[in-house]
Parts: sequence; structure tokens; C-alpha cells
Amino acid sequence: MASYVITGASRGLGLELTRQLSARSEVGKIFATARGDSPKLQELAKASSGRIVVIKLDVSDEAAVKKAAAEVEIGLAGKGLDVLINNAGIRQFSQKGTSSMENLQESFTTNVLGVHWVTRAFIPLLQKGNQKKIANISSTVGSITYARLVQPIPAPAYKITKTAVNALTVQYALDYENEGFTIFALSPGWLRTDLGGEQADLSVEDGAEATLVKILSSTKEQNGQFLNIKAEGWGEKYDGSNAPW
Amino acid sequence: MASYVITGASRGLGLELTRQLSARSEVGKIFATARGDSPKLQELAKASSGRIVVIKLDVSDEAAVKKAAAEVEIGLAGKGLDVLINNAGIRQFSQKGTSSMENLQESFTTNVLGVHWVTRAFIPLLQKGNQKKIANISSTVGSITYARLVQPIPAPAYKITKTAVNALTVQYALDYENEGFTIFALSPGWLRTDLGGEQADLSVEDGAEATLVKILSSTKEQNGQFLNIKAEGWGEKYDGSNAPW
Repeated sequence: MASYVITGASRGLGLELTRQLSARSEVGKIFATARGDSPKLQELAKASSGRIVVIKLDVSDEAAVKKAAAEVEIGLAGKGLDVLINNAGIRQFSQKGTSSMENLQESFTTNVLGVHWVTRAFIPLLQKGNQKKIANISSTVGSITYARLVQPIPAPAYKITKTAVNALTVQYALDYENEGFTIFALSPGWLRTDLGGEQADLSVEDGAEATLVKILSSTKEQNGQFLNIKAEGWGEKYDGSNAPW
Repeated sequence: MASYVITGASRGLGLELTRQLSARSEVGKIFATARGDSPKLQELAKASSGRIVVIKLDVSDEAAVKKAAAEVEIGLAGKGLDVLINNAGIRQFSQKGTSSMENLQESFTTNVLGVHWVTRAFIPLLQKGNQKKIANISSTVGSITYARLVQPIPAPAYKITKTAVNALTVQYALDYENEGFTIFALSPGWLRTDLGGEQADLSVEDGAEATLVKILSSTKEQNGQFLNIKAEGWGEKYDGSNAPW
């Protein structure tokens, strides 16, 4: 059975991904990380008969990342890790656009450095795993090609750091391609979570389901790509084809 | 006559751009910034009859950026600034690729935050200028589309931060489009400078000339684009057409 690590699992997409993963028979242990207290995740873990292991982790702290990887290694008891889902992220706003953008550094630390540190720390465990799969949760607002389309969303730091994490993803994908890794960026759609807000397109349940379909069905062919979900009734927006850089 | 600010002018492309700008009759004052001591730039300034003003500036220090903008404002004596060239940048290597990348934060501070801070600080002066032009010196190695092509260059932090500065450029371009700004990313080609190394394609003189052609000929049509130089004899590599994101 496949083992998973998923970051940012206290709420929103990460919590729902953890819930849906834990309901699947082919999924084994799930190491779900959360920065703060996470009663909903703890509750889910309690009901999971030991399948979900909660690990406290702030991905913006590299030392903590290394410590978390050591905890997971112990939890795996000599086995490898199959899938890493880099889901932790922040969406910071700057209502007046670039001129008022004071959060680019902070967004970068969590959304890019955090993914770098987590990925690097878990690769030795993934090298011992069967699937060698890393899904970096990105967003189509990080597509420079779509910049004009998403201009009304006043979150330049979020957009820029999602572009940067796409670039990071491709660097890792190329570096580990010859070892059989599948490393991709994946836009989960605009979801009604604390991060996405109430006006978003899809429920977190539908978004997580569509996201999991992409992760579970991915093969080496998807290495280095920018995947987007498929959801019925949204036309080209969520037709399942890759997003442009 | 048009006024210019150019960062990173102590050597390489920045020094040569300053030299070539100062030889043009349509160019007025050039405020050339340098982080450290810069004897070559000082010499150039001495011979310029006051056209070149050297300003000490480390773009990775936001307070210093604000101070430099105040100095330039005094130097302009009530006039606006016409063109800003964000040229300062660092190319850091990680010989073992992503797994050995310890310089992503440092690269980001200079190559992305530095451009953000400089741009934001000088926009009020550019708003009073005639051309309202900002050229962000980027690189085609920051094109995610070209990632596989440039994979042999072991500089992931440089690549990722150049992708990020492209994204930043487009955010600024969209924010200031209605005010008549022309803001673009521009790849100067691979040049034989300290940054580019001896194996590079073009001399710094040829690269600076091709870069200036692009900056001088740009119009509002180029706002938000990723320009690439034109150089004879290099085929598609330097055919002057835009680079992909």
C-alpha cells in the first residue's frame, strides 16, 4: 500500500485530500503535517485506526522540515515513501497591487522555499519508495500567460510565488527524471476554502476529488508538467488539459 | 533629453550600457548605481562632463533603495525620470543541482525583491517623466519553456529567480499600463562578462548594443512582454523575437 506525506493538512484542500486519501483501500500510511493546532485533522486521525499520522510542521522553518522528515522515516520503519504532496501555501493580498506589496518575501518563504526544503528533505525517502511521485500544489494564477485574465485578483505575491514554484518544480523534475521520479505542478481549481474564499468555483470536496484523480493517474509522462483539474460544466477552465507557463 | 537610472553599473553589462548610453546625443543624465567600489564606473563618470552620476546602492537593502531614489530626485531637480533599467543581478551556482541549492533565498532577494524595491521607489519619478519605461534585465534561462534546453547550466536559483522576476515584471506592467508605462523583461543574450563567463556567446559590447536597441525602440506595445535581443549569425537564438514564458 502506498504511503503519503501531505503538508498543510490542518484545513481546506489539505484536510480534504487527507480525508479522501484515508478512505481509499490502496492508500497506506498518511503523514499529514500541520503548522498549528488542528482539531479537525486530529479527529480524522483518531478515527483512522493509525493510518493517519499527524506531524507538527511549519514548512517555512528548514530545521523543522528536517526534523519532520526524520519523524516520517521512523514512522515508515525502513520502508520508502511513495508520494509527497506539497500542499502548504499562503495567499496574501495587496489591495493596491504591486505598489502596496509588502508580503513578497513572506509568500516566497512559504510557497517556494518551503516546497524546496520539504522536497529536498523527503527525496531520500522517496528514492526508496515505489512511486517516487511529488505533486506541488500550484495555481493557474501563477501562469504568466494567464496574468491579464486574473488581473482583478489583488494578490501579486501569490501569483509571483506560484510562478516561482512552477519553475522550482521543473528544476526538480529534470534533476530526478533519470531516477524514475514523477514531479509536477498541479492547479487544484479555485476552491471554497479559507484560502479560496466563498466566491470560488468549486466545493473543497469536488476540488480535492479532481486533484486526487490527477495525482493518482499521473505517470512519468507528467514529469515536469503543469497539470490542471477536470471538472464537468466549466468548459476550458477545468477541462483537464495542462496549463501554460 | 532622456534621463536614465541603471542599477548594477560597476561592471559587465551595466557598465557597458552606461558607457554606450553616455555616448548617445539623445541621452541626458544617467544615474548609475553600484553596490561596491567601482573604479571603472568612476573613471567613466569623470570623463562624462557630469552626465553620469554614480550612486552607491545595494539593491538588496530596501532602505538604501529609498535613499538612492531620494538622491536621484534631487539630481533631477524637479524633472521626471524617463527610463529605469533594472540590471543588477547575481547568478549563483549549485553544482549538484536542486539538492545542493542553498542560495535560493539570496538570489531571490537581489534578483526579485531588489527589482521590486527599486521599481516601486522610482515609479513616482517615472510618472513625472516622458517615456515611463522600465527594462528588467532577465534571461532566457528563466523561461520555463526552455528549462530542458538550459538544463546543463547548474544554476537553478538563477533560473527560478529569473522566472520570478518575469512574473513580477508582468504584474507591474498590468498595474501601470493605463498610466502609459512600458514595462518589460529583456534577455541581453549570454555575454562574456564576470557573470556570463568566458564561454559565452557574445562580447559585452555587442550584447549591450543589442540590448540598447531593444530598450530604445520599445513602445507601449512591448508592455508586459519578454523581449530577446537580435544578433546576426545566431539563428533563432537571437533573432529578436520574444522569448516564451
